[in-house]
Amino acid sequence: MTTPPAPDRTTSGTPTSAAAAGTRLDPWLASYAARTGGMRASEIRALFAVANRPEVVSLAGGMPYLARLPMDQLADIAGRVVAERGLVALQYGSGQGDETLREQILEVMRLQGIEAHPDDVVVTTGSQQALDLVTRVFVDPGDVVVAEAPSYVGALGVFRAYQADVVHVPIDADGLVPAALDETLTELAAAGRRVKLLYTVPNFHNPAGVSLASSRRPQVLEIARRHGVLVVEDDPYGLLGFEGEPRAALRSMDDEGVLYLGSFSKTFAPGYRVGWVVAPHAIREKLVLASESAILSPSNASQLTVSCYLATYDWRSQVKDYREMYRERRDAMVGALADHLPSATWTVPEGGFYTWVRLPEGLDAREMLPRAVTALVAYVPGTAFYFDGRGADHMRLSFCYPTPDRIREGVRRLAGVVTAERELVELFGATGGGGSPAVQAPGPDVA
Amino acid sequence: MTTPPAPDRTTSGTPTSAAAAGTRLDPWLASYAARTGGMRASEIRALFAVANRPEVVSLAGGMPYLARLPMDQLADIAGRVVAERGLVALQYGSGQGDETLREQILEVMRLQGIEAHPDDVVVTTGSQQALDLVTRVFVDPGDVVVAEAPSYVGALGVFRAYQADVVHVPIDADGLVPAALDETLTELAAAGRRVKLLYTVPNFHNPAGVSLASSRRPQVLEIARRHGVLVVEDDPYGLLGFEGEPRAALRSMDDEGVLYLGSFSKTFAPGYRVGWVVAPHAIREKLVLASESAILSPSNASQLTVSCYLATYDWRSQVKDYREMYRERRDAMVGALADHLPSATWTVPEGGFYTWVRLPEGLDAREMLPRAVTALVAYVPGTAFYFDGRGADHMRLSFCYPTPDRIREGVRRLAGVVTAERELVELFGATGGGGSPAVQAPGPDVA
Repeated sequence: MTTPPAPDRTTSGTPTSAAAAGTRLDPWLASYAARTGGMRASEIRALFAVANRPEVVSLAGGMPYLARLPMDQLADIAGRVVAERGLVALQYGSGQGDETLREQILEVMRLQGIEAHPDDVVVTTGSQQALDLVTRVFVDPGDVVVAEAPSYVGALGVFRAYQADVVHVPIDADGLVPAALDETLTELAAAGRRVKLLYTVPNFHNPAGVSLASSRRPQVLEIARRHGVLVVEDDPYGLLGFEGEPRAALRSMDDEGVLYLGSFSKTFAPGYRVGWVVAPHAIREKLVLASESAILSPSNASQLTVSCYLATYDWRSQVKDYREMYRERRDAMVGALADHLPSATWTVPEGGFYTWVRLPEGLDAREMLPRAVTALVAYVPGTAFYFDGRGADHMRLSFCYPTPDRIREGVRRLAGVVTAERELVELFGATGGGGSPAVQAPGPDVA
Repeated sequence: MTTPPAPDRTTSGTPTSAAAAGTRLDPWLASYAARTGGMRASEIRALFAVANRPEVVSLAGGMPYLARLPMDQLADIAGRVVAERGLVALQYGSGQGDETLREQILEVMRLQGIEAHPDDVVVTTGSQQALDLVTRVFVDPGDVVVAEAPSYVGALGVFRAYQADVVHVPIDADGLVPAALDETLTELAAAGRRVKLLYTVPNFHNPAGVSLASSRRPQVLEIARRHGVLVVEDDPYGLLGFEGEPRAALRSMDDEGVLYLGSFSKTFAPGYRVGWVVAPHAIREKLVLASESAILSPSNASQLTVSCYLATYDWRSQVKDYREMYRERRDAMVGALADHLPSATWTVPEGGFYTWVRLPEGLDAREMLPRAVTALVAYVPGTAFYFDGRGADHMRLSFCYPTPDRIREGVRRLAGVVTAERELVELFGATGGGGSPAVQAPGPDVA
């Protein structure tokens, strides 16, 4: 028996109707905190309830493809952890996380040149919790977080929840543009704004698919340091590059000015919700206190299971296997785009899960989505990845979960929708604009 | 191999020295959010690193005693979940939680008279996360949370983290005093304060060991309703009563004005970090959005394992077994107190994990703690359970984790310390006072 990925989604309406219903029906409406005003059900949430149906090819989700995992051996590991260490696995643990796992995490990070001490690591309930804790510890309402344009939708949601103001900095094919970053930070300083964090996904960017060039990394660090801005390096995909060795992490070049966020969700499996953050000592201490307040301690059962997997299974081979599988899917994606959607442009990611597609002139990815879902293909409109309403001319296509054949079929369907849209645009002019409000986070499975 | 329960604790100093070191060494000190000012390492954290040594009898911790769990069968369940449902267990899940588990949670709550719909339940990373989410959704800085005097230290920590102001209401042997609640809420309204939540642990209170009398329950609800205050019913121990049937939950009498927080941490095991909150529809929707922002989704692996345990094991017998075991320990505790500490007074809890001990006149539980640890016994000073510095005349003794023999030995040691303290007080007068600052949360294992 399997449960549907997101049963709650079927009950959500659009924000308009939900807000209207709330006004009438919710006796606690006047009691909510100010920050709760920013929490709205996604406009596209209801649509994704449909998009999760098996006949739809979803190029929307960020779910890893898990069928290649050695389930029998993982079952054995899960059982052994309870049989042999049940009194620890089933008990409360340290707020900072299991010490053995923290040592193993160092080993994983060494592949990207990071040297740290187990005491620098805080284990979190997925790296999403790390984002939440970092924002909690640093961001007052009205503070600025500088982030790439576009940025991971789940990070924008956290910043919004803490009432931050996100200012975007452009990226190009080599990632964050240092000159633009410097200029933005200079302008913000001149305007008297408090910039607390620079949020960046330097490897195989979500959603843009690009990576920060090695030559730019020291420049970005120098600029951030000069402006007194802490760098949040969010790196769930760093080991999932399709060619060559992993690039050196920003954290490998600066251990006082970077908070490094890692995760086992993409390189192993998300169901245990094990991520981590590496932080300088004083910050690490605050993060542990914040985490204890939020959840007391991360799950020992999850941590010990991941720890046992790392200790007893050839996890490097598993990561290699994932890399090969996702490369094949990336190839299917960009091949199908070239075959079927020559009127669009897209990034060719060297790793990770996503490509970022610019639609032909005049098309609006959000307006087009219902028609795409009707044509049995789903994607995430670019507006989800901006704080300021931009992005309607882009869509994120993910190649992580569907098989190569399904990816090709999905792109073929999408091409049909785009062709029909272009005909409409030619007849009647553009259907949407860039000034409409940003799409909210569509929920965990499209993270 | 077992890891120590809290390795991070050994590195923490007192807040004074940590703050001083921070001023000198932390380059990010000026960047922290205002709320982070309230996050301080516990004064008694370093002490508890010592208290966790095996030669110390810890009457401080709130860890359940897990050796009675059927580990072989639980290992089998953990393995089966991965072998049979690995693709779901290891994947991202719904932000609201697994639907089957939410149905099973209804079955558990029915034992306390609660009728709800699976859609009313949000699964959380332990009920601590439920507390965090509820506070996040409702509390602006400066808002008032009304809470029992004393209150669960971990809840006070959450309220502090969201910059709430906690106003205490007295309890007696029958729990929260309705007249005092009414008076406090009236005064707060007259003073123009915004009271958002009433936080209460109605069953087997932590730390006080008392329960809210059945006759008072409708009164408390009526008062809260009249003042427009939402009730947060925190009920981890409700099924762990030593005699008779579980009392009807507040939520069973009011489904619009009560948020009910439940947990498997005490009735099953805390290591999976599975708790839940039951909320009216509009609030539930906000809680799901807040949880998605905080962690994306709770662990499917944990949820499916707990779900399989509930479906395949006689969990009601397990709860009964826990009840009998904890009753025996309660008896050992109160028996030893009568034998060795007749100069103190204490509550005799009818369930749960804790007794609340009033020290003889002139003694200060916080001042005495280092001497107790030297005598190889630990407790939590009463100051931890107040927002306003009170409580030095009390200590919380927990009887959940040590065996009856160890409990008796611990109380015997404690009696020796008290006797020595009393002699000092008689010679030199009282050693401490009630005006000193509150002790912070000492970390998860003493929750």
